[in-house]
Amino acid sequence: MSRVTIVGAGVMGTATAWPLSDNGHEVRLVGTHLDGDIIKSCKISGLHPRLKRRLPPGVTPFYVEELETALDGADFILSGVNSMGVRWIGRTLAPYLKPGSRLIAVTKGLEADESGNLLILPEVLRSELPEGVRDQVSLAAIGGPCIAGELAARRPTCVFFGCRELETAQFLANVFRTSYYHIQTTQEIAALEVAVSLKNAYAMAVSLAAGWLQVAGGPDEAGAHMHNPAAALFAQAVFEMGCIMKALGLRGEYASGLPGVGDMFVTCRGGRSSMLGSLMGEGKTYQQGRAILKGETLEAALIVEQMAIALPKLEARSLLSPGDIPLMRALIEVVAHGQPLDVDFDLFFR
Amino acid sequence: MSRVTIVGAGVMGTATAWPLSDNGHEVRLVGTHLDGDIIKSCKISGLHPRLKRRLPPGVTPFYVEELETALDGADFILSGVNSMGVRWIGRTLAPYLKPGSRLIAVTKGLEADESGNLLILPEVLRSELPEGVRDQVSLAAIGGPCIAGELAARRPTCVFFGCRELETAQFLANVFRTSYYHIQTTQEIAALEVAVSLKNAYAMAVSLAAGWLQVAGGPDEAGAHMHNPAAALFAQAVFEMGCIMKALGLRGEYASGLPGVGDMFVTCRGGRSSMLGSLMGEGKTYQQGRAILKGETLEAALIVEQMAIALPKLEARSLLSPGDIPLMRALIEVVAHGQPLDVDFDLFFR
Repeated sequence: MSRVTIVGAGVMGTATAWPLSDNGHEVRLVGTHLDGDIIKSCKISGLHPRLKRRLPPGVTPFYVEELETALDGADFILSGVNSMGVRWIGRTLAPYLKPGSRLIAVTKGLEADESGNLLILPEVLRSELPEGVRDQVSLAAIGGPCIAGELAARRPTCVFFGCRELETAQFLANVFRTSYYHIQTTQEIAALEVAVSLKNAYAMAVSLAAGWLQVAGGPDEAGAHMHNPAAALFAQAVFEMGCIMKALGLRGEYASGLPGVGDMFVTCRGGRSSMLGSLMGEGKTYQQGRAILKGETLEAALIVEQMAIALPKLEARSLLSPGDIPLMRALIEVVAHGQPLDVDFDLFFR
Repeated sequence: MSRVTIVGAGVMGTATAWPLSDNGHEVRLVGTHLDGDIIKSCKISGLHPRLKRRLPPGVTPFYVEELETALDGADFILSGVNSMGVRWIGRTLAPYLKPGSRLIAVTKGLEADESGNLLILPEVLRSELPEGVRDQVSLAAIGGPCIAGELAARRPTCVFFGCRELETAQFLANVFRTSYYHIQTTQEIAALEVAVSLKNAYAMAVSLAAGWLQVAGGPDEAGAHMHNPAAALFAQAVFEMGCIMKALGLRGEYASGLPGVGDMFVTCRGGRSSMLGSLMGEGKTYQQGRAILKGETLEAALIVEQMAIALPKLEARSLLSPGDIPLMRALIEVVAHGQPLDVDFDLFFR
C-alpha cells in the first residue's frame, strides 16, 4: 500500500484517485487556491462537483493551506495542475522534495526555448526546483487518451507512463494498474509529452470542419456532412506531428501511436480545443473565439503560440522547411498573428 | 475533354461523376445487373435514389445491356462495383480492353493468396483479362477518406490516385482534380489499397466500444461514454495496420497517413462496418450480426476472413509472430471461428 498525494483537484488529477483507491492505496487530494469550492464540496459531501461523482473510499480532501499535512509521509506526489500551474507547483513543492522523491504529472503543454526546442512541462517543473535536488528527483508523466470522467467510471483506458528512470515508471505503473487502467511504460518521456501536447493543437484543427459545416448551413438536403475534410485534417495532423517530432530528434512513431493518434481521437470528440477549432472554422478570429469561450484555459492555443515561437528557430536550424507542416502554419497565422483562417488542402500529404 | 465510362452505379462510382462533370467531361454511367432500378430512376428523372441527388450535367445513364454503346470511344473506364463484382467486371470488360487501355477502380478489398500475400482487387481484376492484354492495361485505384455523398456535395475531399504507371495516375488526377477534390498520386498502389482495405476491418474494431456502451446501459449518470476504449482501439488499429503492411513488404507509412488513419477516421463515423462492430461489442456472434444486417455487403468481415487465411501463412514465413496484431486476432476469432469477442487491452502497444 502506498500513500499518494494528489496536488490539484481538477478532473484529471482527481480521476486518478479511482484506480489508486481500487488498489487500496491511501490518497490525499489537495486543491490549489483555484480549487477551494471543489475541496469544500468534497469535505462536506464527498461529491466532486466537476466530475459529478463521490470520491471513492480512502481519498481525503485537503485545502491548499493544509498542503504540508497532506504531504507528510507521502510515497510520491501526483501533479494534477494545468499548464498554467506548472511553475507554481514546482516552487510550492520545492521545500518538500528530497533526493529520491518521485512525482508524476498529468499536465500537458510545451514551452519553446531560445533554440526552438520544445521543453516538456515536467522539465519546466524541474527547473523550479533548487539545485542539488533538481537532478535527484524522478519526474514521470502520464500520456494517452483519457477522458477523466471515463477513468472515474472505470471505463477501459490505455495510457503510457513515461519516465527517464524506467524503474520509477514501472513502480508507478504497478501502483496504478487495474483491470480497467492499462498502463505501458516508456523511458521516452519527451516523445510522449510532445505527442500528447501537439495533439491538443491538432484536435483543434480537426474541428475546423465542424465550423465549416456550420457555415454551410449544416448537413445538406441529401445528408452530406463534413467528414471528408475532417478526415483529411486528422490524417494531415498525424503526419505533421511526426514531422515535428522527427525535427526535434524524437521518436516519430508516438505521433501515430496511443499518445498522438489515440489521444487526438478522443480530444476531437469534444471539449475546449474542439470548440475553439469549430469557431475558427466558422471564420471567427482567435480573439473572437477567446471571447466566446471566456474563462476557459485554451491549452490548444497555448501550444500553437509556442509553435509560433519555435518554428522560425527550427527553420533557421534547417530542421524544418517552409513547405513542411502547412496545417500548423495555418493555425499559427490565426492564433499568433491574428490572420483569417486559410487552409490549403493542396499543400497536404506531400 | 475526356469521355469516361463509369461501370457500377452505386454511390461511390456515381459520386465521381461530380468532379468529372464540373471539369466538363462526358460521363456515361452504366449500372450493373443489380443497379437496374437506379438507372431507371436516373433515366426518368435524373435522380440517383441512393445518393438522393440529381445527376450533374453531362452524365448519361445506361443499363448494363447498353454497355457496348456506353464504352464506345471511352478514354478510360472507372470501375464502381463492390468487391463481390471485381471478377465479373474483369470478365465483362475483357473483350473491350486493348493494350494501352486505362481503368481506375474505387473498389476496396483483398484476397489472400496461397502464400499469405494479400492481392489487391485491381490485380484480381487483371487476372480475369486475357493474356496479351493483361499486362498491357494500366490499372489505377482511388484510396482515401471519401464519403460518396460528401464528394457529390462538393465537400473538400483528399484522396490518393495510385497506379504502377505514374503517368496514368497523373493523367487521371488531372482529369478529376477540382477545387474541392484534392488528389495526390502514388506508384505504390499495393500499399494504398492494402491500407484502405484493412481500415474497413479496423473501423469495425473501433466500433466495438459503441457496443460496450450499449451493454453498459449507455452513458452513466455522470455522462461517461466509451471514448477512452474507442481511442485505444483506434490507436492499436493504426499500429497493427503498419505491422501487417511491413510484414507484406509494403510502405508502412500509409497506415498512419491518409489511406489508413484518414480513411478509418471517416469509416468510424457510421456505415455497415461500424454497425457490425457495435453488434459484436454488444456480444452478438458474427452470425447474429449478419442476420441483423441482412442483405448488406459486410466488406469489413470479408477483410477479416481473408486475414484469417493469410495469418497462419505469414506466421509460417516468420513475417508475423504470435504476439503481433492481437486486435485483428480477436476479430478473426469472432468472424472466422465463431468465437465470442475477447479483447485484451494488456496485449496492446507492445
